[in-house]
Amino acid sequence: MLIALLPGDGIGPEVIAETRRVLEALSLDSLHFEEALVGGAAYKATGHPLPPETLDLARRADAILFGAVGDPDCDALERHLRPEQAILGLRKELGLFANLRPAKLFPELADASALRPEVASQIDMVIVRELNGDVYFGEKGMRTTADGKREGYDIMSYDEDEVRRIARVGFETAMARGKKLCSVDKANVLETSQLWRDVVIETAQEYPDVALSHMYVDNAAMQLVRNPGQFDVIVTGNLFGDILSDQASMCAGSIGMLPSASLDSAQKGLYEPIHGSAPDIAGQGKANPLATILSAAMMLRYSLNHATAADRIERAVAMALANGARSPDLGGTLSTREMGDAVLAALT
Amino acid sequence: MLIALLPGDGIGPEVIAETRRVLEALSLDSLHFEEALVGGAAYKATGHPLPPETLDLARRADAILFGAVGDPDCDALERHLRPEQAILGLRKELGLFANLRPAKLFPELADASALRPEVASQIDMVIVRELNGDVYFGEKGMRTTADGKREGYDIMSYDEDEVRRIARVGFETAMARGKKLCSVDKANVLETSQLWRDVVIETAQEYPDVALSHMYVDNAAMQLVRNPGQFDVIVTGNLFGDILSDQASMCAGSIGMLPSASLDSAQKGLYEPIHGSAPDIAGQGKANPLATILSAAMMLRYSLNHATAADRIERAVAMALANGARSPDLGGTLSTREMGDAVLAALT
Ligand SMILES: CC(C)[C@H](C(=O)O)[C@@H](O)C(=O)O
Ligand SMILES: CC(C)[C@H](C(=O)O)[C@@H](O)C(=O)O
Repeated sequence: MLIALLPGDGIGPEVIAETRRVLEALSLDSLHFEEALVGGAAYKATGHPLPPETLDLARRADAILFGAVGDPDCDALERHLRPEQAILGLRKELGLFANLRPAKLFPELADASALRPEVASQIDMVIVRELNGDVYFGEKGMRTTADGKREGYDIMSYDEDEVRRIARVGFETAMARGKKLCSVDKANVLETSQLWRDVVIETAQEYPDVALSHMYVDNAAMQLVRNPGQFDVIVTGNLFGDILSDQASMCAGSIGMLPSASLDSAQKGLYEPIHGSAPDIAGQGKANPLATILSAAMMLRYSLNHATAADRIERAVAMALANGARSPDLGGTLSTREMGDAVLAALT
Repeated sequence: MLIALLPGDGIGPEVIAETRRVLEALSLDSLHFEEALVGGAAYKATGHPLPPETLDLARRADAILFGAVGDPDCDALERHLRPEQAILGLRKELGLFANLRPAKLFPELADASALRPEVASQIDMVIVRELNGDVYFGEKGMRTTADGKREGYDIMSYDEDEVRRIARVGFETAMARGKKLCSVDKANVLETSQLWRDVVIETAQEYPDVALSHMYVDNAAMQLVRNPGQFDVIVTGNLFGDILSDQASMCAGSIGMLPSASLDSAQKGLYEPIHGSAPDIAGQGKANPLATILSAAMMLRYSLNHATAADRIERAVAMALANGARSPDLGGTLSTREMGDAVLAALT
């Protein structure tokens, strides 16, 4: 099976390198790797953040392991040339509409969360975020108003099919867990949210065993701090999911720990850490590779049918932490490489 | 001076009643009160959430003290009849574009925050939220797509004047405090945010003494948990401000503690607690009136030129807390009335 490795910018190459070592150590002889440029790195080399060869590799591959994109050098470029367009383009071109972001505190890291340990230890949820629609992909631009002012605009929208297919992923995820689904919207203000809520309620008919609730996004941001243990599965749109899943990941300790999967309707997926490219620490060996290594475990489980190997990786990460492996974001001093070594040692 | 009292729905009437008692105890003979219906309560009595008489009173008044709106009985109404339209209408009709939400932990309440005490105690910021534009007020609706699907849409936009006037409030607020301003947007995805960022950078020329930074909203949601002490003043749009200010308030302890001011360009204002109508505990004397009492203090300071009286209220609240006054949201058992009594006792 072919795995596309897309390291990208900033700390991306460092965390992907460690993850590749871990995957290779599994000695699954069915795995092959091909690497390609993406993001600012691709722009600098080819003039495009998502070159055709990269998109082609992503299409051919059975799964994609992605580092991170984002490069301050590119901030002044036109929007379609910026590094972020690469990840947005991959999500859209490959129909990766369902982003799954599990947030759970590793007990070994109870001290790394800014939340009180008794609050943080309750966190065990999955955020299901829609990735192919919302204000991310609507018509957008700059225009001049009638009285000559510059104006920026972006159209937010969802149609019923888009909502239904992600709602189903939310319900299915809840069925496989605690059977509680919380749908987050801003239906008291937004029509897009009103349609979202209507369709989620309709879809609930198909899942009588799941307890469905609704929450406004402002309240959800509050509840994720106050009592994150109340959530089992959250389903929400692209923009609210972006904000809430980053917030939740921090409640669960370091952003350096959390993996994600972005799936199409046939379980093909792109796997990436939740964190960004962190240009400020790039190339210094300070990045925590565990989020990417755990993303590889999700890849083995969801797209490559290697559940046993996935378990092995997750156990090795837990063991490395139990043995005291800590990168700077976790309050320690181990380098990216040494964190990789710690996982490899635990694996074998 | 005329104060419009708009209690609204749910716990609104209870918290406004205690606040009125506190204001009356100040014996400022220049203050007069007039009350009017708003929100679901107004809809039930008159068929409209913001009746003309209420809007008229709000226009005539020197300041407005607002409880909360929101009533589950009204969820199925057409959007323009829902309780929330009352607060949105007041903000828009009166040109109240600048929402100031201070978030600070009362040292007495260090135990009430879900954050570790050493993290929570660092919180001392003001969130400046734009209130008259963004996706809240753009064209919105339900439509049918070419292939017959229901679709909800909302247009997000800002023009340069809207951004400039709120940016100035952000810079002025920072000048009066720690001289640090963080502008929050999602410029890597949204054109509205790109214009926002461009105009904030232009406006910074007028305030060379303020250190300006920019942060994406997903990162801001993370940083508000990880290290909220890094923020002095945050300036952001209507939607992101809604989410982040609720989140920040919870980091600072209970949502039942935090006041807000919504100002027009002449310092006329509407003052309201950050919390909502909390229908689940309405009428039971369980609500914490302190956020509304502290909103009244902001009103005295910003709109009524009674800074000394504002100080007296704030000191009385701190003293009541020091004396152990705790409503259920703060882990105690005092009723709304008893919390009001505790402030009154401390005042005199
Ligand atoms: C890089 C950016 C476009 C992206 C997003 O907003 O979706 C990132 O924040 C994420 O969450 O994966
Ligand atoms: C009631 C609702 C419309 C309102 C908003 O979203 O602005 C509220 O959440 C607030 O923050 O004041």
